[in-house]
Amino acid sequence: MAEKITPRDKDFSQWYQDVVLQARLADYSPVKGCMVIRPNGYSIWEQIHENLDRRIKATGARNAYFPLFIPESFLKKEAEHVEGFAPQCAVVTYAGAKDLEEKLVVRPTSETIINSMFAKWIQSYRDLPMMINQWANVVRWEMRTRLFLRTTEFLWQEGHTCHATADEAEVEARKMLRVYVDFAEEVLAMPVIAGLKSESEKFAGALRTYCIEAMMQDKKALQAGTSHNLSTNFAKAFDTLFLDKDGKQKLVHQTSWGVSTRLIGGMIMTHSDDRGLVLPPRLATTHVVIVPILSNASLKADVLSAAESLAKSIQDAGASSQLPYSVGVLVDQDETKQPGWKFHEYELIGVPIRIELGPRDLEKGQIVMTRRDLGQKEVVLLGEVPQKVVRDLAAMQKELLEKARAFREKNTFAVDDYSDFRKRIEEPGGFFMAAWCQSKSCEAKIKEETKATIRCLPLDPDHQPIAEAGRCLACSSTDSLVRAIFARSY
Amino acid sequence: MAEKITPRDKDFSQWYQDVVLQARLADYSPVKGCMVIRPNGYSIWEQIHENLDRRIKATGARNAYFPLFIPESFLKKEAEHVEGFAPQCAVVTYAGAKDLEEKLVVRPTSETIINSMFAKWIQSYRDLPMMINQWANVVRWEMRTRLFLRTTEFLWQEGHTCHATADEAEVEARKMLRVYVDFAEEVLAMPVIAGLKSESEKFAGALRTYCIEAMMQDKKALQAGTSHNLSTNFAKAFDTLFLDKDGKQKLVHQTSWGVSTRLIGGMIMTHSDDRGLVLPPRLATTHVVIVPILSNASLKADVLSAAESLAKSIQDAGASSQLPYSVGVLVDQDETKQPGWKFHEYELIGVPIRIELGPRDLEKGQIVMTRRDLGQKEVVLLGEVPQKVVRDLAAMQKELLEKARAFREKNTFAVDDYSDFRKRIEEPGGFFMAAWCQSKSCEAKIKEETKATIRCLPLDPDHQPIAEAGRCLACSSTDSLVRAIFARSY
Repeated sequence: MAEKITPRDKDFSQWYQDVVLQARLADYSPVKGCMVIRPNGYSIWEQIHENLDRRIKATGARNAYFPLFIPESFLKKEAEHVEGFAPQCAVVTYAGAKDLEEKLVVRPTSETIINSMFAKWIQSYRDLPMMINQWANVVRWEMRTRLFLRTTEFLWQEGHTCHATADEAEVEARKMLRVYVDFAEEVLAMPVIAGLKSESEKFAGALRTYCIEAMMQDKKALQAGTSHNLSTNFAKAFDTLFLDKDGKQKLVHQTSWGVSTRLIGGMIMTHSDDRGLVLPPRLATTHVVIVPILSNASLKADVLSAAESLAKSIQDAGASSQLPYSVGVLVDQDETKQPGWKFHEYELIGVPIRIELGPRDLEKGQIVMTRRDLGQKEVVLLGEVPQKVVRDLAAMQKELLEKARAFREKNTFAVDDYSDFRKRIEEPGGFFMAAWCQSKSCEAKIKEETKATIRCLPLDPDHQPIAEAGRCLACSSTDSLVRAIFARSY
Repeated sequence: MAEKITPRDKDFSQWYQDVVLQARLADYSPVKGCMVIRPNGYSIWEQIHENLDRRIKATGARNAYFPLFIPESFLKKEAEHVEGFAPQCAVVTYAGAKDLEEKLVVRPTSETIINSMFAKWIQSYRDLPMMINQWANVVRWEMRTRLFLRTTEFLWQEGHTCHATADEAEVEARKMLRVYVDFAEEVLAMPVIAGLKSESEKFAGALRTYCIEAMMQDKKALQAGTSHNLSTNFAKAFDTLFLDKDGKQKLVHQTSWGVSTRLIGGMIMTHSDDRGLVLPPRLATTHVVIVPILSNASLKADVLSAAESLAKSIQDAGASSQLPYSVGVLVDQDETKQPGWKFHEYELIGVPIRIELGPRDLEKGQIVMTRRDLGQKEVVLLGEVPQKVVRDLAAMQKELLEKARAFREKNTFAVDDYSDFRKRIEEPGGFFMAAWCQSKSCEAKIKEETKATIRCLPLDPDHQPIAEAGRCLACSSTDSLVRAIFARSY
């Protein structure tokens, strides 16, 4: 039989690792810090890719592919950028059986190499906006790694856009933030807070970084995506100029934005439970598994044929429903495994709906159905199953989001007293909203003393940080206060 | 106005580069040997990916992702493999701001890193067959590179499978060869010859390599995909063992198989012409462009509205047709460009069907339609356009394949006299079928003296090289003769 999953309340970190390994989502590789994404995990990435790709293309961006390698000199052209990324770079010094004249950095992100091409492709205002997205692997050397959440190599998409004006770049950065919010909530069923990063937490080379932050079941925060307004920082470094309508050469204004395989880790820590993976239906490939009970030899053929015909009816009901995906149905005919083993297995790997169908059920014209997140068996008449599956898949998607949002709201607190905050960040933990005077020293003091960081400054409808009345959590100043969310994070 | 494309008959190699650069399919990057795949080229790769991925999954393989880096010691475990790949490796020696204890090779192919995981995952015959596919970038340091055809970094899929018996592995290798043949012919409209590679040309580490070979318009051969029976070579090196039904530990029998972005280059050199890219409809995203003639201000609104309604009718006709894709229709409303400029542009980038619609056409209830590969204008009644588009797209896909096949047949010759062959390989060139005694020295002599290599040994219905009567092309021996295809190649 299978291994046991450590319960969440005993050791959350061990629970996470148990779920990832036992559900065969990913595995450790022999290369330090690099993971292997196994088929059960990769199929989730394929759903993310397909769904987000459609949303990105709908904004007008097109996909392209740029080199894995970046000449070391390119990385050095933007001062803040190299300072931020140099300590994490993997460097090729030897290739084709000789030492390289110029070392090549394995891309940690592609602003520099892409700007070298933008500078060549963009001539006039007619070429703008130029909006490119890339699905690729990137490498950032990490000391402490965790499957999906922080790995030396990871998969992501990185969008890079050029615009004629500062305003257009700002609009684009905010628009992509909104795409990420909608995607995270509608597809991953993971509620997120959209906000602005503080100066210390922003992307190396950006004017301003927007982000989405999610709360995990251990009440820690996970940064789930970022959208940067790069201003003209990289354009200056690479002479990315265009001839404007007024006949003048001007620097383009840029954005970049990305999400990664980290989303899979965030999704797991948002929904899963002590029995294994809980997968929002929109990320599943197999939505329904039918486990026929085949122990009675004389009725086996009848049971199997009923299971196959039920599978077909469910697929048909899905196709004529409003569900934004084809409903995948598996009839598990494997007779070398016991039904009990199968129930456990499909719970572990997170199939949204399980149906049991035995000879006695068949006689009564019914089946037993279990929604993965609720875990309660229901008896359903055969003829009603297809419509119920469609309703349950839609309900499960919606309720996972609502449940996670309720959890976050329950664990989000307003604080104004620092010593109170220091106690509560330990126990019970959560997101703490407080006033902050916007000084780096207050931010650093809080991080140093509590290991909590500013996750973001939540935004008002005009995308401005929300002003807060009161006193700064750290220094009690009453000047230039904004609302900040403090939390420990991944 | 645009640059001129060098005609094929003047300089084929320059023609190819002109098409790739001017149609904005790819560009040179600042990193030696690495290309940038631009949106017009990447959308072709997306079609290839989507279509081939479906075929691969239908065979039972599932996608996964393995690390980019391979510990140097792993590559050395299989002797022939390291000998074949070491000269082409790019090596990371420095990462995270220090020298690495063990150097990491950027994967040139993933047999070794994947076997290290197979050895961990596979325990018993119940775990077999294990069939994994990966879409990834790989790096092979090349001296002379050409966009798409041979680049230092390229994108590909690599399948890796494990089986309980030698027979099953052989069946799998042949099955995937067949998948590649069907894919190349049905989707790329590129006819291929399936065959066996000679010992000197097989994959480093394989027992046997099958391949598909295509003829380009300059009559040179392009290896377009390979499928390897790896026997137990990598299983031995990595102790990839399973407990068989008989209670004995046995080595797994493996295959690997792949195609790459090189296919895009092959497709271009198969179909394109002196006016630019000719794209088989199954690789297109925009299948039809409607260019409304908007010069008459008072009729502009009518023309535009007719164009939009025609676009809709074409999409609807596509949706209810047998075409295996949605028909993409673009109405080009850009008034800053002249119709003549647009005609040239859409020919260059290979939109399969162009429709011109002006006020006079509208009055007569007709349009002017041009199929990209034929280049002849046809007047078509408005009401008949949607069905004609559907028919023409299907016909174009079919006729491109037929035309390329006829070209290959016309340029394939049987030869038995070596001096005759030496003349004809220079002029007119082509594929030359000849008897070969299977000795490496004869193969090497022919390569040395004529720059022609054995592209493959064509297969009989049992997948065996075809025996040939006569004398070996090089040594005149009459022993163990097989039919070989000799050609110069990319």
